Amino acid sequence: MSDNWQYSRRAVAMKSSVIRDILKITQKPNIISFGGGLPAPELFPAEGINEACRKVLKDRPHEALQYATTEGYNPLRELIAERMNKIGVPCDADEILITGGSQQGLDIIGRVFLEPDVYVVTSSPTYLGAIQAFNAYNPLYLTQPSDDQGFVVSGLEELLKKHSPRLIYLVPTFQNPDGRTIPADRRKAILDLAVQYNIPVIEDDPYSELSFEGQIPEHMKAMSPENVIMLGTFSKLLAPGLRVAWLIAPRGAAFDRCVKMKQGADLHTNTFAQHVIYEFIKTGALDEHLKVIRRTYSRRRDLMVQLMREHFPSEVEFTEPTGGLFLWVSLPEKVDTAEILAKAVELDVAYIPGFAFYPDGSGKNTMRLNFSKPTENEIEIGIPRLAKLFKDVLAS
Amino acid sequence: MSDNWQYSRRAVAMKSSVIRDILKITQKPNIISFGGGLPAPELFPAEGINEACRKVLKDRPHEALQYATTEGYNPLRELIAERMNKIGVPCDADEILITGGSQQGLDIIGRVFLEPDVYVVTSSPTYLGAIQAFNAYNPLYLTQPSDDQGFVVSGLEELLKKHSPRLIYLVPTFQNPDGRTIPADRRKAILDLAVQYNIPVIEDDPYSELSFEGQIPEHMKAMSPENVIMLGTFSKLLAPGLRVAWLIAPRGAAFDRCVKMKQGADLHTNTFAQHVIYEFIKTGALDEHLKVIRRTYSRRRDLMVQLMREHFPSEVEFTEPTGGLFLWVSLPEKVDTAEILAKAVELDVAYIPGFAFYPDGSGKNTMRLNFSKPTENEIEIGIPRLAKLFKDVLAS
Repeated sequence: MSDNWQYSRRAVAMKSSVIRDILKITQKPNIISFGGGLPAPELFPAEGINEACRKVLKDRPHEALQYATTEGYNPLRELIAERMNKIGVPCDADEILITGGSQQGLDIIGRVFLEPDVYVVTSSPTYLGAIQAFNAYNPLYLTQPSDDQGFVVSGLEELLKKHSPRLIYLVPTFQNPDGRTIPADRRKAILDLAVQYNIPVIEDDPYSELSFEGQIPEHMKAMSPENVIMLGTFSKLLAPGLRVAWLIAPRGAAFDRCVKMKQGADLHTNTFAQHVIYEFIKTGALDEHLKVIRRTYSRRRDLMVQLMREHFPSEVEFTEPTGGLFLWVSLPEKVDTAEILAKAVELDVAYIPGFAFYPDGSGKNTMRLNFSKPTENEIEIGIPRLAKLFKDVLAS
Repeated sequence: MSDNWQYSRRAVAMKSSVIRDILKITQKPNIISFGGGLPAPELFPAEGINEACRKVLKDRPHEALQYATTEGYNPLRELIAERMNKIGVPCDADEILITGGSQQGLDIIGRVFLEPDVYVVTSSPTYLGAIQAFNAYNPLYLTQPSDDQGFVVSGLEELLKKHSPRLIYLVPTFQNPDGRTIPADRRKAILDLAVQYNIPVIEDDPYSELSFEGQIPEHMKAMSPENVIMLGTFSKLLAPGLRVAWLIAPRGAAFDRCVKMKQGADLHTNTFAQHVIYEFIKTGALDEHLKVIRRTYSRRRDLMVQLMREHFPSEVEFTEPTGGLFLWVSLPEKVDTAEILAKAVELDVAYIPGFAFYPDGSGKNTMRLNFSKPTENEIEIGIPRLAKLFKDVLAS
């Protein structure tokens, strides 16, 4: 009987994603959810994707439906390299490995670098999906606090010296969950230490092309190409259901080991989806689509920030990111956002409690709000509901 | 610099797939390759798939391009359960986890059950992709020899008693690489021991729906549903480029742990591909397609066997499987098929040396031949080339 089989220690220890569990609790009709991290589905360019499918299946069905190389479809790798160079990241197609979403990129990095009792440095809060991916390899975590500018560098050198961590994991631009961006001087300071102590920096970069205004700092991969593994994805730029992302690793041991681990994990990423995305990009449709989603998300963020200013009690603080998908709300220390989630659901509004993004479970008075998925109408109704919740809780 | 980073032991130890390396060596123009394990690309039902894409993108683009649950698209899971029940395997949709190819299914099984110094039982030869997937978790292997009927049961009980292995891994029907099928009495004997020693049997089943004639034995999952995890895939039935497969695990700890491990590995499988396959099956097109590929592959196998009888020297033995994709050739002991591969490539013909399928590197006088991908014309030219190679080698 399967309950009596012997399982691996990792399987016994592994928990389900807190976020997915919370999202399940908050699924009810009429609820307005700021909880997920989903792109706006009504903007998916279904017609352009359909046109790309048609072309691929007409021109090269034998190739697009067949087994393929682990590294990925070469013309797509070349297009990605071109796009990366345009945003200032120097790389060639042969440094790019196509992955099944960035979640798989994180898993591959875990496989290549991690094992029991080695250390990973992250910020606190950080992207929890990364922690979940890494946990399959049983590492330990060292966290640095965040301020307005994200990852705090002070204290990092001691961690590196004392624990020789295997990785420094960062989402430097419009971080999930808090929307913060690490400025150039901090990026440089982190890289200097990473180089000195010979530790790879993982630059997880799903959001930098969703910048609404102003300039984002130079990518860490651009500042120090040999010392950074960068992750990019079409999930936020085009459609997450296609599960196509990429990993850029320095040539040699790093890249080769990523490829071998991917080979054992799933041979290669969906060939058809790779061809379809290639065709879609080639027509210029992705750049057009990016304009549309930037405009829409920026308008939703504007509206949300404006309503938060109008309605939230003055003790409630929040970030005002210039891109990405998320805002971060901090309540007075006495409030536990996980505890009051049930009340929020009663008021038909939902969010993700911030503790879910702290490897040590702190951050109890924070929450993440998503502004890409809810419509303007939903934001107009949902933010006042949240404001009511805060007022009720702060008054009690 | 990345060559000086500290990598995990698994990454340092991991080798590239021998088969993929061999396939690279044998890539040259005009070569006739019996090496790969690919479906015939000229039979891919591109039009039906295009129609399914069009329908999905018209009817439900918001769902089909969005993030989705880890378990998979429910209507597809239901269709698979229905198909499984039709072939005698009792299961419900909620025991089915959609995976990114069966290679990912094997990886998930490795994650859930394996860790350093635990044992896995396989036959020798066995499917090497499984070994590659499992190796990421550093287990040890116990192999049982094969005869005409595949996995030899005698001696298995000692292994189970002595080593308490975590898994018994089998491809019971039309096994890759040797095309052999384990008969019902052996299946039962293996299951009786597995139950007695409380060890899960992994029934890797990519080929059983590619049966050309006669009846195949009852599936092991059907004989003992609570003691078997079964893997099935659309890669051989429809198109490997779509990377959609499934894993059927008993409810409770086994299923739940597989889902959690999949969540950390890549969140979920390509939503769009799942919807497209669902639409394709629903129209009845898959059953039609299966008739086409069974007929074609069976004709190719007939031709190949006939030419092998006519041309191969009498010392050369081979299996005559009644389904699947592969034939298995055994040469006199003195011949090393890896050594003579260079000569084969000179004669413009290729195969996979059998040692690649033996966890202990034995089987040096064997080779695997594929009959699904080469056309009849290629078989007519390629088999006499192989015969010439054998005659040359046996004469020297």
